Amino acid sequence: MATPTHHVLIVGGGFGGLWAARALATVDVRITLVDRQNHHLFQPLLYQVATAGLSAPDIAAPLRHILRRQRNVEVQLAEVTRIDVDARAVVLADDGRIGYDTLVLATGATHAYFGNDDWRTHAPGLKTLDDALYLRRQLLLAFERAEAEPDPAARAAWLSFAIIGGGPTGVEMAGTLAEIARHTLRHEFRHINPADARVRLIEAGPRVLSSFPEALSARARQQLERLGVEVSTGVAVSHIDATGYRLGDQHVAARTVVWAAGVAASPLARSLGAPLDKAGRVQVMPDLCVPGHPEIFVAGDLAAVQHDGRPVPGVAPAAKQMGRHVADTIRARISGESVDAPKAVNAPDAFRYRDYGNLATIGRMAAVVHVGRLQLSGAPAWWFWLLAHVFFLIGFRNRLAVLLDWTWSYWSYQRGARIILGGAGGGEDGHRDPDEQRMSGPSDAGGAP
Amino acid sequence: MATPTHHVLIVGGGFGGLWAARALATVDVRITLVDRQNHHLFQPLLYQVATAGLSAPDIAAPLRHILRRQRNVEVQLAEVTRIDVDARAVVLADDGRIGYDTLVLATGATHAYFGNDDWRTHAPGLKTLDDALYLRRQLLLAFERAEAEPDPAARAAWLSFAIIGGGPTGVEMAGTLAEIARHTLRHEFRHINPADARVRLIEAGPRVLSSFPEALSARARQQLERLGVEVSTGVAVSHIDATGYRLGDQHVAARTVVWAAGVAASPLARSLGAPLDKAGRVQVMPDLCVPGHPEIFVAGDLAAVQHDGRPVPGVAPAAKQMGRHVADTIRARISGESVDAPKAVNAPDAFRYRDYGNLATIGRMAAVVHVGRLQLSGAPAWWFWLLAHVFFLIGFRNRLAVLLDWTWSYWSYQRGARIILGGAGGGEDGHRDPDEQRMSGPSDAGGAP
Repeated sequence: MATPTHHVLIVGGGFGGLWAARALATVDVRITLVDRQNHHLFQPLLYQVATAGLSAPDIAAPLRHILRRQRNVEVQLAEVTRIDVDARAVVLADDGRIGYDTLVLATGATHAYFGNDDWRTHAPGLKTLDDALYLRRQLLLAFERAEAEPDPAARAAWLSFAIIGGGPTGVEMAGTLAEIARHTLRHEFRHINPADARVRLIEAGPRVLSSFPEALSARARQQLERLGVEVSTGVAVSHIDATGYRLGDQHVAARTVVWAAGVAASPLARSLGAPLDKAGRVQVMPDLCVPGHPEIFVAGDLAAVQHDGRPVPGVAPAAKQMGRHVADTIRARISGESVDAPKAVNAPDAFRYRDYGNLATIGRMAAVVHVGRLQLSGAPAWWFWLLAHVFFLIGFRNRLAVLLDWTWSYWSYQRGARIILGGAGGGEDGHRDPDEQRMSGPSDAGGAP
Repeated sequence: MATPTHHVLIVGGGFGGLWAARALATVDVRITLVDRQNHHLFQPLLYQVATAGLSAPDIAAPLRHILRRQRNVEVQLAEVTRIDVDARAVVLADDGRIGYDTLVLATGATHAYFGNDDWRTHAPGLKTLDDALYLRRQLLLAFERAEAEPDPAARAAWLSFAIIGGGPTGVEMAGTLAEIARHTLRHEFRHINPADARVRLIEAGPRVLSSFPEALSARARQQLERLGVEVSTGVAVSHIDATGYRLGDQHVAARTVVWAAGVAASPLARSLGAPLDKAGRVQVMPDLCVPGHPEIFVAGDLAAVQHDGRPVPGVAPAAKQMGRHVADTIRARISGESVDAPKAVNAPDAFRYRDYGNLATIGRMAAVVHVGRLQLSGAPAWWFWLLAHVFFLIGFRNRLAVLLDWTWSYWSYQRGARIILGGAGGGEDGHRDPDEQRMSGPSDAGGAP
């Protein structure tokens, strides 16, 4: 069999890119999948790594390993910095280039600081494994610093935690952190009571989990408060620095602030020259290609797509569906057939989002689930969430390891990954050195979602 | 009950320090355990983290958690930089001080570069979890770089690995690395065959595993060679840089060199003003106290002790025994009793090492065991090693997680932690930046063994 001549280049090995690559397995094309990281990340459980419940390798698998038996794909570890649309090539960080016949851009999104990029230093976000390990270190060190701090006000500042953003990530972080303070760390300190920690969740909008029905938002808030989280809605943070944050005209002392708000698409999209929305997402055609460039597709969080008049949410199922849809479109073009996807919006080959529902976990036996007409909260929602997440985790071994970690955590209230790495005993003040940032900005260009 | 007035300060939460703290549980003293890290590390399995077989949290447990129910001990995360013997206090990195009535120094040892400290940059060692994660990243990146490298000579250099030092750590690293190249990475690359990797183990002495009987050293060498490791004995490396190393008058291209040779005691010992041996270990009295300072004890790898005319080896069982012996001596002094330890060397209360045997693993079904008159190699030795290590791992959860990871690895030839962290896609050349070193040197002063 001759080597196929049509070259599909996929940038990003998240849900969008990886699912596109897999769906092209039987298509007569040559595929290159490029990512800055060597692994696919199961991002929905990233907060569990940040809160020491899971190990980093539990929620990630090497892209090479996932795709090892798919002989028409080659995985390349590299960072894409720019797209040369005219030459049909991407430019790499080391100035190398990779040409393409069809490009699938699936580099995802990161958090938006709404023009306050200096907040990033004091309020890190949670998008990569490195972010999660950094945050884990900060959270665990805060309790250590509090234990060593003789001054009551300074100690209270170390025990003051704020999470900005009441979406699923913010809610999960806040609930888990409250649980750690109240249960996991019990009996371990001699000078502080970890349960004195103040965990505050701040949402500028009127309610947490705004993508859920109002009744479930209210249930989520109740469950958070029962876990000990202070929930503040309808107020926005106006300043963040190393000492704390400003809410209205009040300064609140807090040594740990976590950012879980806003969406900023990967800056790589700018080099497409295509129309972007306010968050920097590419406003694609109904079939997910870039206007004027049928050879370039966008999948996942980077794509701004409408469905029934509402934007398709930036969640893993939507990214997977887009990846598969792009693959179907490519298959149809290569074979000369028409696409098998449902016809809608009067456009042939248009992407249609299938909404399977919405889940968010809050803490032990606390979650909310919205699937079709089904609305659950509390323990039933939590079991639903647990099974769904373990089932969708990639790889048999990861599933078993996660189940084991969770079973153990559940019965013991303990968390298996409470290890501070990276020179824990130094004299640093617990806030991130801007020079060691591995978060977004220009370096976020090519890569994982 | 009044608070005890006698204050025992233990520096280092490795096997020596942690076992001393535990053995003092029922003694009427107040204990402070200080470590630079928040965790006790099961160092014998560190090479498994470096070779992606285990997650970092699998082999570590928070010191606070281990000691949470022992009410007479307080754990402090801090770095000790100096001992003020006259004032009976230790000085911390942040200029704080902790006084003591009795000091137990158990800060361990690191690798010695024999005066070639610049080699450290190109040939990192393996003593902490950070070292292991750094090395894992280097090993996995080497295969990625080779895959992307078109020039055959440059590619061969990326696939050339050298391990310096034929002790247990070197043998374990070499055997595991050969297995990864031959089995784990099979089918995953498109431009290289990982099995082409050259894994070389270099030992300056006449044989590998020199602490074992000669017959077992020979068996270990055979098993290594069967796994594909090139074993070179009786030759010393005379130079290491970013391109490779010099052996005799031959330069060998290698982008990854691992250092597993020599012993250098924690530099903290120097501030004691006590006699040190060539490796910097404290030449203690038979009861493990410092000459002229009965209030200062040294336990673990930092202590130079003789047993039956031979030095006690730097292994975990010896460190545990020393820790317990120090605790017994303190108990006897506090209660006015005599020590319960066997009397020997004509000195009362002298430490006596009980040698329970010697194990080293090499690879799948390959190990050597020497216990009393029993000498095993191959599969029986491997099973013996496996059970012994799982049994001695601290914590029920760690044991289960390790067993699961290993069972899975055994049947699948896969390794669960093949995740490159820390900006994998950058343009770095794969060698360690001296500025980001977290290894020994002055900063190694206080802390884990």
